[in-house]
Amino acid sequence: MEEFEDKGGVGRTELENLGEFGLIDRLTQDLPIHNPQSTLKAVGDDAAVLKVPEGHVQLVSKDLLIEGIHFDMTYCPLKHLGYKAIAVNLSDIAAMNAKPLQVLVGIAVSNRYSLEALEELYAGMRLCCDRYGVDLVGGDTTSSVSGLCISVTVLGSALPERVCYRSGAKENDLLCVSGDLGGAYAGLLLLEREKREFLANPNVQPDFKDFSYVLERQLKPEPRTDIVDLLARLDVKPTSMIDISDGLASEILHLSKESSCGCMLYQSKIPVDAETCKALEIFNILPEVAALSGGEDYELLFTISQKDYEKIKDVPEIRIIGHMVEAAQGNYMVPENGTMIPLTAQGWQAFNKR
Amino acid sequence: MEEFEDKGGVGRTELENLGEFGLIDRLTQDLPIHNPQSTLKAVGDDAAVLKVPEGHVQLVSKDLLIEGIHFDMTYCPLKHLGYKAIAVNLSDIAAMNAKPLQVLVGIAVSNRYSLEALEELYAGMRLCCDRYGVDLVGGDTTSSVSGLCISVTVLGSALPERVCYRSGAKENDLLCVSGDLGGAYAGLLLLEREKREFLANPNVQPDFKDFSYVLERQLKPEPRTDIVDLLARLDVKPTSMIDISDGLASEILHLSKESSCGCMLYQSKIPVDAETCKALEIFNILPEVAALSGGEDYELLFTISQKDYEKIKDVPEIRIIGHMVEAAQGNYMVPENGTMIPLTAQGWQAFNKR
Repeated sequence: MEEFEDKGGVGRTELENLGEFGLIDRLTQDLPIHNPQSTLKAVGDDAAVLKVPEGHVQLVSKDLLIEGIHFDMTYCPLKHLGYKAIAVNLSDIAAMNAKPLQVLVGIAVSNRYSLEALEELYAGMRLCCDRYGVDLVGGDTTSSVSGLCISVTVLGSALPERVCYRSGAKENDLLCVSGDLGGAYAGLLLLEREKREFLANPNVQPDFKDFSYVLERQLKPEPRTDIVDLLARLDVKPTSMIDISDGLASEILHLSKESSCGCMLYQSKIPVDAETCKALEIFNILPEVAALSGGEDYELLFTISQKDYEKIKDVPEIRIIGHMVEAAQGNYMVPENGTMIPLTAQGWQAFNKR
Repeated sequence: MEEFEDKGGVGRTELENLGEFGLIDRLTQDLPIHNPQSTLKAVGDDAAVLKVPEGHVQLVSKDLLIEGIHFDMTYCPLKHLGYKAIAVNLSDIAAMNAKPLQVLVGIAVSNRYSLEALEELYAGMRLCCDRYGVDLVGGDTTSSVSGLCISVTVLGSALPERVCYRSGAKENDLLCVSGDLGGAYAGLLLLEREKREFLANPNVQPDFKDFSYVLERQLKPEPRTDIVDLLARLDVKPTSMIDISDGLASEILHLSKESSCGCMLYQSKIPVDAETCKALEIFNILPEVAALSGGEDYELLFTISQKDYEKIKDVPEIRIIGHMVEAAQGNYMVPENGTMIPLTAQGWQAFNKR
């Protein structure tokens, strides 16, 4: 995490002294091009010019991140925020079983932010772009009345026969998940606790030792493009796929609905990291609750045909957590002993009063 | 303008009663597909799936529109705002001499907005998409702490040899503009005057008769995709092109800088509509000042080789307004009689205190 260390004391240059074009020039100077055959013209004109690789289709997605809704500047460093803004978008392309190639970034900021603050934000964005071989090809920078609004558009490509939709799952397909779940939510709980304590007594230093993994899960999620590559190497094409942004329950219900299936999820198979469990204990939250409803893990959830079972059964990064059934059977979590629990989407509801 | 008439009394459904997915379903239901060979999968998955037409390159651009910065809800009806949000993005693709095919829309709204308000916004977006044969293929809907934030991404395509950059202008090329200028600024001045009068006395009815053209220029600009088609029919490929969002002066300076040229602009050739002149007179503003610095006209500014002069000289929608010179000569407006006036970018500066 060396590249995330706070350098401190970087000064303050007011945005109004730069103007819109000056700011864009500063933020986008020396951008590397990782995909020269696809990125023909990046920033600097009315639009970016791209070439989709021969025979490929293109994937496009976008996400908005709003201060006070998706992030809290009290505990979210700008560099991490920039990294996360890119990462969650790359995750949408991975969720189509495709490779992200380009991003465009729009930001609206109030004068409360300095040039140096935005440079930190962009440094995090660049770091994520560099790590995943993605080009930042354009965007828009403007002012806002209050707060920070980040809009990222991501473009990627895949051979058409490799693209995975939410709608392809069939009865008896195996339900699989990458990595482990609930960590991002555990990290959020820790950060919110520290915020409350900080507001009560600003002299208290945060005590985050032993929780670096869950904090990183919350502040700096990684898109699972490696799983896309792994599935290609294993010669497995998922029948359906989605990324886990709103919690496992909500995403399972999306796959089931779009595929006209039901699903049986085996409670004991849900992968939760030991550190996540330890952090959740502090808040008296069961690991499966965090996995089902916590959100922001950005792991991939997908279904595979039973004929592919042998290919993935020993892959450590992939866990089989259930199977699809006919729609009439519904969607349930199946404990080892006990009553089946109906799955409900208690995921993140953007418009609820919270 | 029948489709822009206020239907009134549409009720109020709170967003929190719908949830994020319910809202997205409502706003994106029954979206038509105008480009079935290019738009393979629109809304409803983690990303849209597109196919760029054979042999074409792709153009991508994005713009943010922020309440209180780019629009004022006091006088900007939501349906017009939706139309404009799409139109200004299509204009960016036209400015590359390309055809827009798809848009993605992200909106962040506070609970102050109702479902019906957002439906009005989307109705305007759909109207513009339908008029220009563009597909709405995805997006993101979330809440904001305050106000409305609209993020639009536009995708288009062109044969690579038809793409026009800002950087291709050569010495002696002719500088051309479509349509007429200053109208959008004149419309803004009228609307701001009415706002002041309304705030002073809410019983005063706005007096907008005789000014429908300039109001429409401000509230409902049209992207000049027709000029892109016209140039193709005339077999003219501009050597450089840009759209006029920030005012003629600022855009000329962009073309000059990116092309390493200077420019002589003939003051008497700048096209300004009679109604625009009449509106500007109320505010004691010279027509050329509004054209140079007003912004938001969304006309196309481009340069052509002198060999193409005969092809465009009698086209009513295109005016030759100057010519490019070597960089050392600088950028000037040339009056019929008098001293040459250096062009400076007094365009819209997003971060100025206003």
